Amino acid sequence: MPQYNPPLRDMQFVLHELLKVEDELKQLPVHAEVDTDIINQVLDEGGKFAAEVVFPLNRVGDHEGCRLNKETRVVQTPTGFREAYQKYVEAGWPSLSCDPEFGGQGLPIVINNSFYEMLNSANQAWTMYPGLSHGAYECLHEHGTPEQKALYLPKLVSGEWTGTMCLTESHCGTDLGLLRTKAEPQGDGSYRITGGKIFISAGEHEMSANIIHLVLARLPDAPAGTKGISLFLVPKYLPDAAGNPGERNPIFCGALEEKMGIHGNSTCQMNLDGATGWLIGEPNKGLNAMFVMMNAARLGVGMQSLGLTEVAYQNAVAYAKDRVQMRSLSGAKAPDKPADPIIVHPDVRRMLLTARAFAEGGRAFSSYVALQIDRELNHPDEQVRKDAADEVALLTPIIKAFLTDNGWIATSEAMQVYGGHGFIAEWGMEQFVRDARINMIYEGTNTIQSLDLLGRKILMDNGAKLRKFGAKVQAFVEENGTDEAMSEFVTPLADLGEKLTKLTMEIGMKAFQNQDEVGAAAVPYLRVAGHLVFAFLFAQMAKIALEKQDSGDDFYKAKLATARFYFARLLPETAMLIRQARSGAANEMGMAEAWF
Amino acid sequence: MPQYNPPLRDMQFVLHELLKVEDELKQLPVHAEVDTDIINQVLDEGGKFAAEVVFPLNRVGDHEGCRLNKETRVVQTPTGFREAYQKYVEAGWPSLSCDPEFGGQGLPIVINNSFYEMLNSANQAWTMYPGLSHGAYECLHEHGTPEQKALYLPKLVSGEWTGTMCLTESHCGTDLGLLRTKAEPQGDGSYRITGGKIFISAGEHEMSANIIHLVLARLPDAPAGTKGISLFLVPKYLPDAAGNPGERNPIFCGALEEKMGIHGNSTCQMNLDGATGWLIGEPNKGLNAMFVMMNAARLGVGMQSLGLTEVAYQNAVAYAKDRVQMRSLSGAKAPDKPADPIIVHPDVRRMLLTARAFAEGGRAFSSYVALQIDRELNHPDEQVRKDAADEVALLTPIIKAFLTDNGWIATSEAMQVYGGHGFIAEWGMEQFVRDARINMIYEGTNTIQSLDLLGRKILMDNGAKLRKFGAKVQAFVEENGTDEAMSEFVTPLADLGEKLTKLTMEIGMKAFQNQDEVGAAAVPYLRVAGHLVFAFLFAQMAKIALEKQDSGDDFYKAKLATARFYFARLLPETAMLIRQARSGAANEMGMAEAWF
Repeated sequence: MPQYNPPLRDMQFVLHELLKVEDELKQLPVHAEVDTDIINQVLDEGGKFAAEVVFPLNRVGDHEGCRLNKETRVVQTPTGFREAYQKYVEAGWPSLSCDPEFGGQGLPIVINNSFYEMLNSANQAWTMYPGLSHGAYECLHEHGTPEQKALYLPKLVSGEWTGTMCLTESHCGTDLGLLRTKAEPQGDGSYRITGGKIFISAGEHEMSANIIHLVLARLPDAPAGTKGISLFLVPKYLPDAAGNPGERNPIFCGALEEKMGIHGNSTCQMNLDGATGWLIGEPNKGLNAMFVMMNAARLGVGMQSLGLTEVAYQNAVAYAKDRVQMRSLSGAKAPDKPADPIIVHPDVRRMLLTARAFAEGGRAFSSYVALQIDRELNHPDEQVRKDAADEVALLTPIIKAFLTDNGWIATSEAMQVYGGHGFIAEWGMEQFVRDARINMIYEGTNTIQSLDLLGRKILMDNGAKLRKFGAKVQAFVEENGTDEAMSEFVTPLADLGEKLTKLTMEIGMKAFQNQDEVGAAAVPYLRVAGHLVFAFLFAQMAKIALEKQDSGDDFYKAKLATARFYFARLLPETAMLIRQARSGAANEMGMAEAWF
Repeated sequence: MPQYNPPLRDMQFVLHELLKVEDELKQLPVHAEVDTDIINQVLDEGGKFAAEVVFPLNRVGDHEGCRLNKETRVVQTPTGFREAYQKYVEAGWPSLSCDPEFGGQGLPIVINNSFYEMLNSANQAWTMYPGLSHGAYECLHEHGTPEQKALYLPKLVSGEWTGTMCLTESHCGTDLGLLRTKAEPQGDGSYRITGGKIFISAGEHEMSANIIHLVLARLPDAPAGTKGISLFLVPKYLPDAAGNPGERNPIFCGALEEKMGIHGNSTCQMNLDGATGWLIGEPNKGLNAMFVMMNAARLGVGMQSLGLTEVAYQNAVAYAKDRVQMRSLSGAKAPDKPADPIIVHPDVRRMLLTARAFAEGGRAFSSYVALQIDRELNHPDEQVRKDAADEVALLTPIIKAFLTDNGWIATSEAMQVYGGHGFIAEWGMEQFVRDARINMIYEGTNTIQSLDLLGRKILMDNGAKLRKFGAKVQAFVEENGTDEAMSEFVTPLADLGEKLTKLTMEIGMKAFQNQDEVGAAAVPYLRVAGHLVFAFLFAQMAKIALEKQDSGDDFYKAKLATARFYFARLLPETAMLIRQARSGAANEMGMAEAWF
C-alpha cells in the first residue's frame, strides 16, 4: 500500500527561506499578522488531515468509483468520502483563505495553496469536491450581487454547501462559443434554464446539503459566439425563505462518465430540465465572470499534478531503498544482502531525481505565483498590484501546462521504478499515472494554455509582461554573475533567458506573415518558458543551499544535488524544444488534410 | 467506438519498395518461392482477421477482464476471446512461420511480423495468448529433445495447445539469479517442481486444450545465481500415452493480477505444488535456452507498441477531421460549419504527425529487423548469417525500448487530440494508453534494454556491431550526399552518425574509470541510437518518395511530408539526449542515499 508524508520541511524552505513569505505578507495590511509560526502550524495540521483522513481513501475511491442510482438520481460517492468531507467542514478547512466578512479565516492564498498540494497528494479525486467549491466561492465573491453573496457565500465558506462549474457541452469544450444551453427570463428575476452539460466534476453527490451550480447559458436575444454567453447560479435545492435547502431544482445527473482515472470524483452528465437560476454579473458577460474561476482553477490543476508528483516520488524512493535486485555496476554496495537495493543503479536515480526535481521546482513555482496573487489582491500600492497581476497572468498558463506535463512524466517514471509491480493496482503507482493524465486536458488543454501564453499574454502586449519577468531574472544574473560557486547555475540561466528573448522575437516576426506560426510554436515555447522559471528558482534555491551546506543539515546538500541534477539532466530539454519551436509551421501544415 | 483499418499500403511500401523483400527472400532457399503476391495475400487476409474478428473484442476485453473461479481454479477469459481463438486455429494462423516438419507453413518471419502488428493494433491483450505460445514454440524448437519436439510441437504449431513462459517470482524479475522455485529429480527422467511464479501472462485459461508452461527452476545441486537455473517443460495436463491431455498437473493459478491495462489477458500468480516437468536443454543452462524465447519476445513487445501507435493514430485522425472546434488562426477553413475541424490547428497536427511518424518509422524498423532474422536463420552464406545475427542482436533492445517509449508518447498524444473525450472509456483512446504502458516494463524494462545495448552489445565488443551498422549508414550518406534534394535528410543523418560515434567513444573511456557511467548514459544513449535507425530509414523512404512524388499517388507526398516532420520535430530530441548522456554519473550518484 502506498504511503504519504507531507513534505513540510521543503514547504518551509520554499515559503520562509526562498520566498520570505512573512516579510512579504507584512506589506499586505490584511495579512500583516500572519507570521512563520502561524503558517507552520496551519501546514502541520493540514498535513495531518491530508495524510490521516484523506489519503487512506485514495485507493478506495479508485477501486469503488461513484455510482448513480437511476431511480433516485443520487450519486453515491466511495466509502468514507462523505465522512471525510464532514470532518473537513468541522475542522473549518473550507474557510481557510475565505473572506472574514462571510465567515472566512482570511488567511493568504499562499498558505491555502500549500494545503492543497497536500490534499492533492493524498487524494486528487476527493480534493476536487472542495476544490471546485472554492472556485465557485471565488466567482460569486467577485461577481455576485450583495443579496447573492449574503445568501450563498456563508454556506460555501463553511463548506455546508458545495459548488460546481458547468461549462462543457458534448459538442463544445474548448470552443464555448458553440454552447446551446438556454436561459429564459421567468419574469420574477429568475431564469428557466434548459440544456445538457457534460464532464461536470462533483456535479452530483450527497457529501453536502446543497450544490450550487454555476452554469453557462444563452439568453434568448444573445449574440452568437462567446459574446452571447451568460453565467447563472443554479442551486440543486432552491433556498427557502430561511435560506435552507427547499424544493428540488430540476438539474439532475443523467449519467456518470466511466473514466481513465479520478474514479472517486463524480463526473456527471447534467441535464437541466427547466431549472431555475439567477444571473451572475452582467448579461452576455458570463465568460468573463467564469474566467475568475478558471484562472484559479488552472493554478489548482497545476497543484493537482504537483501533489501527484510528490506522492509518486515518495513511494518510488521507499521502494527503491527496499527492493533488492542485481548488483551495482561499480561493485556490490550491500554485500550482506542477496543483491543491492535498486537505488544504487544510476538510472533508477534518474527516474527518482526527475520526479524530485519536478516536485521541488513545482512547489517553488506555485508558491511564488500564489504569493503574487496575494500581492495582486492586497498590496496597498496600485503599481505593485498591477505588476503582480501581470506576473500572475503570465505565469498561470505555464503553471497549468508545465506542471501537468511534468506530473505525467514524473508519475510514469516513479511507476517505472517498481518494474512489473508498478503496473499492478495494489501498489497504487498506476493510479497516480491515470489520475495525472486528466490534468493535461481539463481547465483548457495544454495546447490552449500554450496559445494563451504565447498569443495573448506575450505577443498581444509585445512582450511587456515577459520583459518584466525577464528583468527579475536579469537582476539575479547580474547580482550573482561574478560568484564563482554560482556560475554552474547562473551561466545556463542567463543563456536560456537570452534564447527565450530571441525565440520570442523570431516567432513574433513570423506571426506577422502567418498566424499558424504561433500555433506551431506555442507548445514547445511554453515548456521553454517553464524551464526558465524553474532555472530561475533552482538557481535561487541553490544559492541558499550553497550558503548553508555546511550547517550540518543535510537538507541543503540534498537541495544542491537536486538543483545540479535539474541543470544537468532536465534543463537540456530546452535544446530540443527551441529547435522544435523554431522549425516553423510548414512541417505541420505541409501535409494536406486528405493525406492523413 | 474506435475503428481499425489495416495499414496495408504502408506495409507494402515498406516490404516491397523499401526492403525489396521478394529479392531478399530469393537468396534464402527455403523462402525462394515467397513472392510479392503471396505476401500481399497473406497480409490482406491477416488484416481482415485482425480487424473483423479480433478488434471488436478489444473494448470487451478491457471492460470485462478475466475472472478466476476459486473453486475450479479455472480462469474465464472475456466474452468472445475463446471463439476468436478457435477461428484463429481453424484458419491456420498459428502455423504461419512455423517449421513445416511440425506442420508449419514455413513462411518467413518478416510476414509473421507484419501480421502481428495488425493483431496488436486490434487487441494486444488477446494477441498475447498466441504470441506467448509462439515464443514457447521457438524455444522448444531450438532446445527440445527429438521426443519433446515430436510430442509438443505439432500441437503448438496447430494452436491446439498454447504455451507460456514462467520466469518471474515475487522477489525477482530483472534479477532471475535470485529465483527459488525448486526441481527435484523423480528418478524416471521427470522432475517434481515446487514454487511460486508471478506475472505469468496467459498463465491459465480455457482457450486451448492444454497449456505448455516453460518454467525456470533450480536443481538440488545447482550453483547460486544465474548459473544455477534450469528450464523445464510443465504441461497443465500431462499427455497420456496417445499424446492427448491426461492427468491434471498441479500447476494452478492462485490469483489474477488487477492491472492498469491489458485486462483481457490472464496475468496469473502460478503455484507449482510438486508439478511434474521435464528438463529442456542442459541442466543449469536454462537462462540461455530461455533467451531464445526472450529475444523474439522483445521484438514482439516492440510490435505491441507499434500496433497501438498505429490504431491510436488512425482514431485520432478520424476524430480530428470530424470534430469542429474554434477557427483556424490563419482564417476560417470551413466557413460553412460552426467551427473548423480541429485538424486545421498546427498543434493538433503535431500530435497526429508524432504518432504517424512513430508508426511509419517503427514499421520500417521492425520489418527491417524481422528480415534480418530470416537472413540470420536461412541465408546459405555463413558470413551473411553472422552479420545478420549481429545486427539483430544490436537492434533488438532498441526495437523493444525505443518503440515502446514511442508508443507511450504516441498513444498519449493521440488521446490528447480528443480533449476531455480522450479520458472517457467509451472512446477507447485511454485503453490504448493503459495497454501501452506495460510494454516499457515487461520482457526486461527499458533500462535493462539500454544496458544490454550499451554494455553488452556495444562496449563489450568495442563497438564492432555498431561499426558494421554505421558502415551501412555511411554508405548511404556517401551515395546520396551530392543529391541536392536529399540534403535535408542526408545532412542531419550524417551529423547524427558522427555524434553517436563520438558519444560511444566518450562513454567507453569514462566507463574504464567508473562502470556507473554506463548506467548513467544508457537510457538516453539508446534513444539516440533509435533515432539514428529512424533517420536512416526515413532518409531511404524519403528518397523513394522523392522519386515517385509526381506519380499521381498521394501516398508518396504524404510519406515525404511525414519524413520532413520527423526530421524537423522528432529528431531534435537527440540534442537533449546527447547532453543528458554526456552529463555523467555524478549528477545522479552525488545524491547520498539518505538524502532521498
